[in-house]
Amino acid sequence: MARLRVKGIAFDMYGTVVDVGAVAVACKGIAPDPTAFAALWRTKQLEYTFLLSLMGKYRNFWTVSDQALEFTTRRLGVEVSPEQRPRLMNAWLEPRPYPEVPAVLARLKERYPLAILSNGSPKMLRAGLAHSGLKADFRWVISADAVKLYKPAPKVYAQAPKQMNLKKADILFVSSNSFDVLGAKSFGFRVCWINRAGLPLDALGPRPDLVVASFETLRTAME
Amino acid sequence: MARLRVKGIAFDMYGTVVDVGAVAVACKGIAPDPTAFAALWRTKQLEYTFLLSLMGKYRNFWTVSDQALEFTTRRLGVEVSPEQRPRLMNAWLEPRPYPEVPAVLARLKERYPLAILSNGSPKMLRAGLAHSGLKADFRWVISADAVKLYKPAPKVYAQAPKQMNLKKADILFVSSNSFDVLGAKSFGFRVCWINRAGLPLDALGPRPDLVVASFETLRTAME
Repeated sequence: MARLRVKGIAFDMYGTVVDVGAVAVACKGIAPDPTAFAALWRTKQLEYTFLLSLMGKYRNFWTVSDQALEFTTRRLGVEVSPEQRPRLMNAWLEPRPYPEVPAVLARLKERYPLAILSNGSPKMLRAGLAHSGLKADFRWVISADAVKLYKPAPKVYAQAPKQMNLKKADILFVSSNSFDVLGAKSFGFRVCWINRAGLPLDALGPRPDLVVASFETLRTAME
Repeated sequence: MARLRVKGIAFDMYGTVVDVGAVAVACKGIAPDPTAFAALWRTKQLEYTFLLSLMGKYRNFWTVSDQALEFTTRRLGVEVSPEQRPRLMNAWLEPRPYPEVPAVLARLKERYPLAILSNGSPKMLRAGLAHSGLKADFRWVISADAVKLYKPAPKVYAQAPKQMNLKKADILFVSSNSFDVLGAKSFGFRVCWINRAGLPLDALGPRPDLVVASFETLRTAME
């Protein structure tokens, strides 16, 4: 595989570097079907970021996650006690990296400056990176919060070239989220889609430069 | 029920005035699970309107619907022949009104000027209103296409006060789509949510002025 020629790499956080499956684990014992509960929660969380951005009514990702949880409990008729609720929310602060991620990041950072570029609020990102042990791998932690808009709005992506002091075409953006891949490619990054589940790409825009099933293959392409 | 004091009424089209369940009917004999196929198609259709609006890459609702169909066939592994494809797409041109809608619109239009305010392209709206026999009920047919953005972007809603020559607080906006209810209320309309399925409201913003299970109850509230 020919190496993609870029000068820096920016990563999406949730579902890409860290496993949001950890949230489903926290739902066990609270929701009768924890997988369905976590899936609806995640779907609504993303939908709310789209809607709030379009309405021009930004709220940070922690608040959005809480509101998405509120809808999910009502929609699925799941009772969540005042003790259980923080346990569910805190799962977003204590994510685990995908198994192969720490070793690959350690290799990549020797060759490229690395950044996180995420919808997460600064507080969520600080906590999540500390908990997952990946904090030292990233020179920049860039949050949508600074521009009060969510991905795939171009203003969110535009923070990375500025902060990394690189042209957008010299940055590889890595995400497992299809909408994020489309948004980043449309913005002008080189893009790698981590397609762990082997899903079809949304038929909506330019294709990513690279599609891989895990960080291992990304590493191979970048060395 | 106290009458809502407004001077005009604007209606969402798909899922509100006309039944998008007609699309599921067209999927019969093509998809093994027509309901799931139509549901994913609709979900993707809406998601694509959000994403394209945020990316600043407008395409009209017909193209969006076609791209959402393309994804749906790939995601669910459903083969759609060149003969079947137009049959599926044309279902959007041949929707049926909900059973109680024609009689209620006939009553309401005696008292209020009525408008359609929809994501649909002008061509889709013309065809759909002609097919459903409702064309004469609406004095204005307003499409998101004119501003190259989709709901819930305020610019889409802002067309109605201009064209209807009414203040936004003097317009009742009627929709069955939760995101549309939130967007319209956030914009400043009075809002009625047609909640046929008895779903919880998204926990995301201001509540609608009126929540009803069908157009019949809306009529009662407006007379």
